[in-house]
Amino acid sequence: MEQRIKKLEQILLNDRFANHNDIHLVSIGKGEAIAEMTVTENHLNGVNIIQGGALFTLADFAFAAASNSHGRIAVAANATINFFKGVSSGKLTAKAKEHSSGKTLATYIVDITDEEGNKIALFNGTAFLKGEY
Amino acid sequence: MEQRIKKLEQILLNDRFANHNDIHLVSIGKGEAIAEMTVTENHLNGVNIIQGGALFTLADFAFAAASNSHGRIAVAANATINFFKGVSSGKLTAKAKEHSSGKTLATYIVDITDEEGNKIALFNGTAFLKGEY
Amino acid sequence: MEQRIKKLEQILLNDRFANHNDIHLVSIGKGEAIAEMTVTENHLNGVNIIQGGALFTLADFAFAAASNSHGRIAVAANATINFFKGVSSGKLTAKAKEHSSGKTLATYIVDITDEEGNKIALFNGTAFLKGEY
Amino acid sequence: MEQRIKKLEQILLNDRFANHNDIHLVSIGKGEAIAEMTVTENHLNGVNIIQGGALFTLADFAFAAASNSHGRIAVAANATINFFKGVSSGKLTAKAKEHSSGKTLATYIVDITDEEGNKIALFNGTAFLKGEY
Repeated sequence: MEQRIKKLEQILLNDRFANHNDIHLVSIGKGEAIAEMTVTENHLNGVNIIQGGALFTLADFAFAAASNSHGRIAVAANATINFFKGVSSGKLTAKAKEHSSGKTLATYIVDITDEEGNKIALFNGTAFLKGEY
Repeated sequence: MEQRIKKLEQILLNDRFANHNDIHLVSIGKGEAIAEMTVTENHLNGVNIIQGGALFTLADFAFAAASNSHGRIAVAANATINFFKGVSSGKLTAKAKEHSSGKTLATYIVDITDEEGNKIALFNGTAFLKGEY
Repeated sequence: MEQRIKKLEQILLNDRFANHNDIHLVSIGKGEAIAEMTVTENHLNGVNIIQGGALFTLADFAFAAASNSHGRIAVAANATINFFKGVSSGKLTAKAKEHSSGKTLATYIVDITDEEGNKIALFNGTAFLKGEY
Repeated sequence: MEQRIKKLEQILLNDRFANHNDIHLVSIGKGEAIAEMTVTENHLNGVNIIQGGALFTLADFAFAAASNSHGRIAVAANATINFFKGVSSGKLTAKAKEHSSGKTLATYIVDITDEEGNKIALFNGTAFLKGEY
């Protein structure tokens, strides 16, 4: 398992879109992962609120880490995101957890909260499971 | 109307997250908008495929443009995205169209295609409508 | 093809949940299908509006017909539905169309309208494709 | 509060679509509710598996109970459902819990499990909050 997680971490460290947008992996476990992002001006939309795409990317990155943690390549098939609260600064944390996993599809829930624990967004993603990596 | 669209364009030009990720507005009409993005290394994930968050952001930006085109402030409440095809280069176009609009909620569909017209992703977003801007 | 569609029609005619709720198949084509339902008291919720589950079932039935029309068994993996307008009577029509189809996943959009063409609900379903039937 | 819950229970008991499909309310609390359904032939599709619409209806009924439990009229705006496992018999339980609630929108998660605790479906619904009832 450890070998596999290290390989996965290398892949995630090579995520240029996450890097370009200051999204960092905090931890990976079996079927779960945590990522974080400190909101800067680069994440804001035209009315100075975090862009929905920045929140989605943070959640999606945690989802990718968690869904690939079992040693099989997992590719996002679809996802739904609910936005609760507009923020303009501070550190956001995305916690991804496996809800259910079958032979070829697995469902993950990602909760995004701010430093005070306020719910910022909820992400529900379905991954398609391929062969081992 | 023209005055309003100009004001909206100013707001969209000020979207720092879209700018930082090379997403550009092509056009805005009543209840519709087109945005595009040329895929660069900055958009790729750890296995050299476009990151889901980059596709979501492109779609969300077109959705924001279309949903705000009527003169009322529209804020994303939630969205679903389906991913069809992984790409690593080329220009992607997102076309947003209003499907239905009520007193306080409106639904938009955004189609992302590549230069050959292949379907890359489908986005379905619900906006919450506030006062005029 | 015709043989296959006939076999599929037999399966759909045997859908006891659709039958029990007065949902009928109108037509099946390649990647598309139409179903309808005349709203009766049995479809209403506690405040005399059509229950969301009745609308979902109508859409899901059209989606099942369309997604199975290619000769491969298609099973719903997930779906999103947007509700636009509460109705209490009249005939509703659900039109399902394939948006995109890959090796193992296919996405369908189903539009539900009333007799005046008002948009009642929008359904977006992802089917998992198995072997031939 | 008790008075309000009684009024809500009356409304839910009057849900003809739930009644017609043997879906029953088990309990309502503040922001949560439980409903159940024993699968009979009437819930099956053409290949003898529970119809997706029956699962959606069970989840939607629990969602309606939970989202209306605060004394404000809550109407479903949209919902996403993930299907995990096809069942043909047995008792299914849907547990709805509030995830987040704002001024006008609230998000609920509904988990459907069978008697052995297997995950059958996951529902994520957004309610639009109106005036008091």
